[in-house]
Amino acid sequence: MLPPRFKGKKLAEEEITALKETARLVRGDILKMTTLAACGHPGGSMSSCEAMLLLWKYASVDPGAPRDENRDRIVVSHGHTAPGAYAVLARLGFCNVDEAVATFRLLGSPFEGHVEQTVPGAEWNTGNLGQGLSAACGFALSAVILGRDYHTYCIMGDGEQQKGQIAEARRFAAKYGLDNLTALVDYNELQISGSIHTVMPQDIRKEYAADGWKVVEVEDGHDPQAMYGALRKATRTGKKPTCIIFHSTMSKGVSFMENDHQWHGKALPVDKCRQALEELGLEDDIDRLAEIRKNYRPHAVEHPGGSVPKIELGTAAYYGPGDKTDCRGAFGKTLAAVGEANRQAERPPIAVLDCDLASSERTTEFAKILPGNFFQAGIQEHHTAAMGGALSVSGVLTLWADFGVFGVDETYNQHRLNDMNHSALKLVTTHVGLDVGEDGKTHQCIDYVGVMGNFFGYRQVLPCDPNHTVHALRWGLSADGPVHIAMGRRKVPVVIDAEGKAFYGEGYRFEYGRMDVVRKGSRAAVLALGTTLGEAIEAHGILKAKGIDVTVMGVSCPKCPSREDLTAAAETGLIVTVEDHNVNTGLGARVASALMEHGLGGKTRLIRLGVDRYGGSGTPEALYRAFHIDGASIAATVEGAL
Amino acid sequence: MLPPRFKGKKLAEEEITALKETARLVRGDILKMTTLAACGHPGGSMSSCEAMLLLWKYASVDPGAPRDENRDRIVVSHGHTAPGAYAVLARLGFCNVDEAVATFRLLGSPFEGHVEQTVPGAEWNTGNLGQGLSAACGFALSAVILGRDYHTYCIMGDGEQQKGQIAEARRFAAKYGLDNLTALVDYNELQISGSIHTVMPQDIRKEYAADGWKVVEVEDGHDPQAMYGALRKATRTGKKPTCIIFHSTMSKGVSFMENDHQWHGKALPVDKCRQALEELGLEDDIDRLAEIRKNYRPHAVEHPGGSVPKIELGTAAYYGPGDKTDCRGAFGKTLAAVGEANRQAERPPIAVLDCDLASSERTTEFAKILPGNFFQAGIQEHHTAAMGGALSVSGVLTLWADFGVFGVDETYNQHRLNDMNHSALKLVTTHVGLDVGEDGKTHQCIDYVGVMGNFFGYRQVLPCDPNHTVHALRWGLSADGPVHIAMGRRKVPVVIDAEGKAFYGEGYRFEYGRMDVVRKGSRAAVLALGTTLGEAIEAHGILKAKGIDVTVMGVSCPKCPSREDLTAAAETGLIVTVEDHNVNTGLGARVASALMEHGLGGKTRLIRLGVDRYGGSGTPEALYRAFHIDGASIAATVEGAL
Repeated sequence: MLPPRFKGKKLAEEEITALKETARLVRGDILKMTTLAACGHPGGSMSSCEAMLLLWKYASVDPGAPRDENRDRIVVSHGHTAPGAYAVLARLGFCNVDEAVATFRLLGSPFEGHVEQTVPGAEWNTGNLGQGLSAACGFALSAVILGRDYHTYCIMGDGEQQKGQIAEARRFAAKYGLDNLTALVDYNELQISGSIHTVMPQDIRKEYAADGWKVVEVEDGHDPQAMYGALRKATRTGKKPTCIIFHSTMSKGVSFMENDHQWHGKALPVDKCRQALEELGLEDDIDRLAEIRKNYRPHAVEHPGGSVPKIELGTAAYYGPGDKTDCRGAFGKTLAAVGEANRQAERPPIAVLDCDLASSERTTEFAKILPGNFFQAGIQEHHTAAMGGALSVSGVLTLWADFGVFGVDETYNQHRLNDMNHSALKLVTTHVGLDVGEDGKTHQCIDYVGVMGNFFGYRQVLPCDPNHTVHALRWGLSADGPVHIAMGRRKVPVVIDAEGKAFYGEGYRFEYGRMDVVRKGSRAAVLALGTTLGEAIEAHGILKAKGIDVTVMGVSCPKCPSREDLTAAAETGLIVTVEDHNVNTGLGARVASALMEHGLGGKTRLIRLGVDRYGGSGTPEALYRAFHIDGASIAATVEGAL
Repeated sequence: MLPPRFKGKKLAEEEITALKETARLVRGDILKMTTLAACGHPGGSMSSCEAMLLLWKYASVDPGAPRDENRDRIVVSHGHTAPGAYAVLARLGFCNVDEAVATFRLLGSPFEGHVEQTVPGAEWNTGNLGQGLSAACGFALSAVILGRDYHTYCIMGDGEQQKGQIAEARRFAAKYGLDNLTALVDYNELQISGSIHTVMPQDIRKEYAADGWKVVEVEDGHDPQAMYGALRKATRTGKKPTCIIFHSTMSKGVSFMENDHQWHGKALPVDKCRQALEELGLEDDIDRLAEIRKNYRPHAVEHPGGSVPKIELGTAAYYGPGDKTDCRGAFGKTLAAVGEANRQAERPPIAVLDCDLASSERTTEFAKILPGNFFQAGIQEHHTAAMGGALSVSGVLTLWADFGVFGVDETYNQHRLNDMNHSALKLVTTHVGLDVGEDGKTHQCIDYVGVMGNFFGYRQVLPCDPNHTVHALRWGLSADGPVHIAMGRRKVPVVIDAEGKAFYGEGYRFEYGRMDVVRKGSRAAVLALGTTLGEAIEAHGILKAKGIDVTVMGVSCPKCPSREDLTAAAETGLIVTVEDHNVNTGLGARVASALMEHGLGGKTRLIRLGVDRYGGSGTPEALYRAFHIDGASIAATVEGAL
């Protein structure tokens, strides 16, 4: 049973006494853990100490059930204050004090250098400043969507407020009236390079107010009663999110460390640490802890996240032979059908996010069907990506659709943190490749494989035609973990098999990682990524007319060409990869690596066709010709190589 | 000779008449070019029309000398208004009217879909919203550094103001008192999805004011006199940058298009276009232009940018055998020597940019020597990356040093636009790889090759030891075009040759793209990226003691393993790549591709050692062991494979 949130009107004297005692212990823990690790960030940990303590002590969280689905969410955005967060969590019973203090930053320990979810009570891995408030918006939004009462708190640094993404998050929270969200800014006025006022002048209070937040200032962030009062009032304010700016002292509690910015990111040497413990009136058990550290054996740690709620997918509609349409149209229709299938549900656990491109993304139909599950985040992609990551692991199936250049290139580092957080975001990007055409090079995302392929969690699918898109989306919406489905802009023909039937029709079964043999031949194997499959089939026809029979394989999962598929392709002696993607970093590169890995490098030649310079503004057809990835060019390449 | 900037106090009546006439022609051009291309963005082009016209007509620019180094810089940040920008430039004589109107968005034409520098008068390729103001800051800053009088104007959309990066740019401009910078916001109150007030509520005026800008509002942005007055007053205001928010009407000038957001990004069909031309009282020459379009033959177009000013590099200091230090230390010392060598210059054309990490980046010494050439941009990496790109092509040798995760991952899309702009930014990232150690996975940038390798312009160097860092930096500072030099955090030994002398000492000559044979052997070739070379040399020793002689090659340029180097390596029959990088997207992948490309796939086996999951928090040594990229593990891998 979760405790009520900030229940009492005020803290009783004995509560204050107890809090001060715990804060003293926490400060000692912070110093010991950083000194034992010989690195880490004591300064901010000590200035945020009381705030963290009050949050985890009086918010609706339970050390015995840290993953209760109705718990309040507490996000520590300035992830370098991990020593403070871990020490508070340990002292409140979320984890073991000795382990937290002794094994901080030791390989295999859950107590990593920046805040990690592997420590019970921590909600989100952080460390890249500026993303926490967006993640907190995701948690707060999940409560709105699911009709739950939990509150989300996000504690941040003051230097961190310089990140533009925070302005985006602020606006989103204000637009959607997230009064179940409270931001806390640790106003110690110092960052690594010195005073925040000289590093980058900024009026934090005015900025939050200008964006429509309620702003509360606490003169002494180390005063438990004052902080308690501010936090209590920030709960359910009616329509507005609240920002508590609390004044604090960096490295508070140790005289020779206070207000010296060198202790932002530096541990005390052992002798100084002993001196500090003495000043704090704490036992010096450094040697005992060092012994624990020395003998530590890592144990298995559970990392939450990744799973998605099961929802109704509705009925899939497929296209017939001869049809020609855009994959994004098929995506939009399939998504609308999902909306339709969940229209009657009381609170469908679904969110579709948009950044002012719904009409191009074809998500407007869904928005009409389930307007309460569609969120317009404006031209704020950094925020949206990070928010979507957190939302996706809070019981809400979350899909964000955007152009490739914004959903992939602009937000790479947000997806990176999502990936580390085991998010389950369903990212759909349209407008990838030269296929984008006339919008030109800035809008041609030709690096979706090269960029997203750096993640260990994300699975990526490039559907080969509109029907394939239907399958990929329905698979993706049912799959755990993060999934990226990417497609172009233009209309493409429905892929048909050798008998003229729709290849990816109703009977097709999508299996992540496998290639599809669409035409069979013996002289060469053309491996075509996504909708370049249509070009490869055209090439097949041209070659066949000349008596050259080639295999054509549709590749939708470029990350992991399977050994089996490649072995079959290599048997022809010539593999030609085709991709509407940077030729150095996409399918061709993955195939080359896999061929060498599987000892197939000597069995076959490999020719890679793709994009070898930035594209220009023109029709997709003209661009495909110019980059030799159209049907005729592919055929000519194969013929020339034989 | 450049004309004076907004010279007259007011516009004379005949000037107003002429402007209105030109605006009418421009509107017709916008409609014709988008209709002929059957796509593009007429709406915003027509609302920004008078603003663009006044800028290019009355700012200090000369159609006859569009690249004069003292010209005012005019940045169009909302790059989709390219039709408006091109039409204005054409009507003012910067380029040919017929070509601009007839060939818009035709492959090979310089008149691409979003604003491109290939059109004389345009300063910066744009298209990804939110980056223009940062680029403008770069131009304005270059005038400050070089002591020039030119003014920079940046025209933006109102929806675009939602991007967080704009808040970062605003703060930077205010901090550095860039009164030679004027921002213009086209306040037509519409974006793709409808009203800016419903898509994402925002008080643009308050936000600029809160960040310390002078804000001017123009009630009618289509009134030449009012706009002229505002622009004239915005020049040299004394200490503050100015933002002009001008109210306008989307698709202004054609009754049936005005204030309808569907025309944001849609061209008129031909019949509607003829109707609009009639309403504007313009000749319908669509058929004539269509003929020009049909018969267009692309001509060579010059793209400016890429070159850097030559500066004194000072004396290089190298390390001796037995020395152990961090590459970033060597970087800092070498950079400080550059500062020292230019200390006496009146206005050294150098800028070193920092995002609150100077002490870790080792740029503090430079900052002390040339404080006027060091810029503290705060925790605002998106802004800094984009600003640095523009600054680097404005006569200022520009270096930005940051952690890998911020300088690469967080700012990928800013570098992407820089790369398309032929920037010459020198990006130095420290803290790449597991080498970062205890800060943990969020801080371990293990994708620097996989990410930056998607650019066609950037050259990338991973120095193999501190001495190599000295060479790489001195080369990079003299090289045209964008360069990325990446290094780890920890101290590494100076690489010595078989005779015990410093391998990368004074006599070494850096040649971009070549590998260094550091040890010679016949049984296998270990190709080690960057400072993993030290581990490979250790492996060489272990193997040698067992009677196994292997070649060890230091790889510093992973993007382009040369055929010659690989042929030599392949002759051993076993290549083992070693990298402190994602094993799927780094050196190993590039080597596999090159082996297949050069027909060497059958000559050798390839084993790739690298990072196959996110790292944890621990010492670099512990991490290297856990990921099998330490000396002992490399030796064991080679031995096991033989």
